Amino acid sequence: MAKRDLISMEDLSREQVELLLDTAESFLPVLERDIKKVPTLRGRTIVNLFWEASTRTSSSFDLAAKRLSADTLALKASGSAVEKGESLKDTAITLSAYGPDIIVMRHPSAGACQVLSANTDASVINAGDGKHQHPTQCLLDLFSLRQTFGRDLSGMKIWIVGDILHSRVARSDIMGFQMLGMDVTLAGPPTMMPRGIGEMGVGVEYDLGRLKEADVIYLLRIQQERIKAGANFLSSLREYSRLFGITTARLHPHQRVMHPGPINRGVEIGADIADDEENLIAHQVFSGLAVRMAILYRTIVGYSDVSSGGEVL
Amino acid sequence: MAKRDLISMEDLSREQVELLLDTAESFLPVLERDIKKVPTLRGRTIVNLFWEASTRTSSSFDLAAKRLSADTLALKASGSAVEKGESLKDTAITLSAYGPDIIVMRHPSAGACQVLSANTDASVINAGDGKHQHPTQCLLDLFSLRQTFGRDLSGMKIWIVGDILHSRVARSDIMGFQMLGMDVTLAGPPTMMPRGIGEMGVGVEYDLGRLKEADVIYLLRIQQERIKAGANFLSSLREYSRLFGITTARLHPHQRVMHPGPINRGVEIGADIADDEENLIAHQVFSGLAVRMAILYRTIVGYSDVSSGGEVL
Amino acid sequence: MAKRDLISMEDLSREQVELLLDTAESFLPVLERDIKKVPTLRGRTIVNLFWEASTRTSSSFDLAAKRLSADTLALKASGSAVEKGESLKDTAITLSAYGPDIIVMRHPSAGACQVLSANTDASVINAGDGKHQHPTQCLLDLFSLRQTFGRDLSGMKIWIVGDILHSRVARSDIMGFQMLGMDVTLAGPPTMMPRGIGEMGVGVEYDLGRLKEADVIYLLRIQQERIKAGANFLSSLREYSRLFGITTARLHPHQRVMHPGPINRGVEIGADIADDEENLIAHQVFSGLAVRMAILYRTIVGYSDVSSGGEVL
Repeated sequence: MAKRDLISMEDLSREQVELLLDTAESFLPVLERDIKKVPTLRGRTIVNLFWEASTRTSSSFDLAAKRLSADTLALKASGSAVEKGESLKDTAITLSAYGPDIIVMRHPSAGACQVLSANTDASVINAGDGKHQHPTQCLLDLFSLRQTFGRDLSGMKIWIVGDILHSRVARSDIMGFQMLGMDVTLAGPPTMMPRGIGEMGVGVEYDLGRLKEADVIYLLRIQQERIKAGANFLSSLREYSRLFGITTARLHPHQRVMHPGPINRGVEIGADIADDEENLIAHQVFSGLAVRMAILYRTIVGYSDVSSGGEVL
Repeated sequence: MAKRDLISMEDLSREQVELLLDTAESFLPVLERDIKKVPTLRGRTIVNLFWEASTRTSSSFDLAAKRLSADTLALKASGSAVEKGESLKDTAITLSAYGPDIIVMRHPSAGACQVLSANTDASVINAGDGKHQHPTQCLLDLFSLRQTFGRDLSGMKIWIVGDILHSRVARSDIMGFQMLGMDVTLAGPPTMMPRGIGEMGVGVEYDLGRLKEADVIYLLRIQQERIKAGANFLSSLREYSRLFGITTARLHPHQRVMHPGPINRGVEIGADIADDEENLIAHQVFSGLAVRMAILYRTIVGYSDVSSGGEVL
Repeated sequence: MAKRDLISMEDLSREQVELLLDTAESFLPVLERDIKKVPTLRGRTIVNLFWEASTRTSSSFDLAAKRLSADTLALKASGSAVEKGESLKDTAITLSAYGPDIIVMRHPSAGACQVLSANTDASVINAGDGKHQHPTQCLLDLFSLRQTFGRDLSGMKIWIVGDILHSRVARSDIMGFQMLGMDVTLAGPPTMMPRGIGEMGVGVEYDLGRLKEADVIYLLRIQQERIKAGANFLSSLREYSRLFGITTARLHPHQRVMHPGPINRGVEIGADIADDEENLIAHQVFSGLAVRMAILYRTIVGYSDVSSGGEVL
């Protein structure tokens, strides 16, 4: 089997992104059946290696693998050799000896997936590495957008609001949104905005004065521990919420809200919006399943049938 | 699929309880085969969401699901979005996006299952919520009783001994035992007895003087942390053991002992009884598997074939 | 099903060891297919009960079971009834009620597997108990040796280097290596050498002066917490590394290095050797999968076809 890593959105061409989204779409009927399972990846082994807590991402990958009939092996840092001080390199060598087809990894350090990949024949899928990238989140966001607004997203205006500086989701999403022709604006306090980010061809706003221009508002989770960390960030959660929190009052009726979860009600998102079925948040979770099925499938069978339009079943 | 919650024993009619027990009985031959597996729930997804430590209940549900060929997804509070402060409501919305058929939940707060149910299309099964209810424990207890004493339990005398006040098992068992016509007596120190409990039609005893009247003695686990909590409970474990601990010396030969586990040898139960094969404790664990298979099955296919006698295979 | 425990290497005759290794070899083609799965143990239940942290051993058993299509149930001490103070005996009784075919257990106390076995009808496989035994590690080591050097290992010289005193791996390996006719030498500081060990028919060395006589060097993991524990062990990690650490400079070209993992780079093993593809460390991990498949299979179907040469597929 060829090795096909998905570590950064830069690993994918626009054609491959579109094929992945088409493949995900072709899995949707499976997810609507009573028996939500296909034998496609029977006997394949997928290792889920999570060095950080995760509900959404790890369970989404686990379930995606099971719906494709793959065998999964879940490893967590706690209770593992990692606690005994084993290096990532040696963990990689050990896991590789089992001959897994794919290793899905979340790790607190940017770049950890490259270390893993250099020491294994398995394909490596990045499920979030430090502040670097979270490409499968980006792909599911694109899928939710496409299912909601149609296949052509070009020219749509999307605002990403929050702590851009520390967000791997933002890094991946900016690339993915631009790849499909979207117009991206970043908004947040100056302390949460990476220097020189404007050079990536995005708009930068330090308040929400022009928020009405957005078609879609993508909220990032405010990590409360960062806020508490002190004066170099914002003075308080309440202050953040007042300036950048999104409530119905701030929203125009046509605007849709996205969030990678888990949400902080009353901080970056008002409870009224969290409870509004017009938001895309639950749809993103649902998309995660279809998109991760597509990613696992394409990682194993490849992207060579680009011309077929991605139909797999 | 219709939504069928099992949150409290009050959710079930007597006919439904009998059907569940019949269904469990029809699964027994599966559990005696070499290949203990039927394809009944293939492709169905069952989420096990445990906010509290559990060996018996979580592994029993997990294995029951596997024996029915369902896919399971296990989520624990530690290492999950819950640690990041996500609300139960938002966890419910997230999990629902995966389209699970059933969510089995254990939670430290009474009433949590209702919150979960209000925010999901999945059927919710309560695996223990605070001091409120533990209906699947009650159903397995009924199954063990019926397998031991025959289908007609009416008029049998059962004593529940221990900390009734803090026990969700007692709350569910009182309802279930009475539903099948059993005569229920509660025994324990006054500090462990809910006020006004006599109004539920049970006998109340503050010592074991009349214990010989019982056919079955159902011991509750003494939670040592409660005893240690101080003077408002009993003065010491030893004192509890002297007054309410059950040893062979206290037992008449015809009396059978039950316990939901895990047991405290030498506290509420003597080692001599724990080791006596006449007790029903291991049988209760075994029953848990058959009964939970039946509950998962009935939750998905429904109770409409009451007249058929519960045969499913 | 007959009960067949594997608690110590003493439980196996030489013929049974050879049959296990032959069986493992017959599973190798399965591990090289795209679909690495056979239906051999479908519907069988294997409980993995780990009272100590483990990556290699628990994931190796889990994956071995899945490749044979068995159902697995993983229980860890944390989050289980063990935390509530349940005795091993009562855990055994509880688990047995589920009717598992095999219980695989790792436990910090030597002899715990006997307690488990005395209280269950399931076959018990020891995945490491205190300082006592780790027979499946020994069997995979033998398999790696046989795959590397051929079926006849008699007369080969193997040195086991490190903390022999605290090592269950050493205890099992000495028995297994001798059973197949190997010449075993133990090397380490006097404080890490069991008294009277020479009576087992092994050589004992307190330095590496004669290391060149070895064909294979089996390094044990130095548990840093033991070294730190004080003056009754070696004065420092650096001192240990200087006297007993193996680097390329110390090795003759024909010598092969083994290690049960996880390794401590720069302590008992130099990074140069850890990264050298000539070492057998990754092969040992790979062997663990084939060997544990063989152990699970033989535990269930038995050893009666010794004359057939172990072919199972």
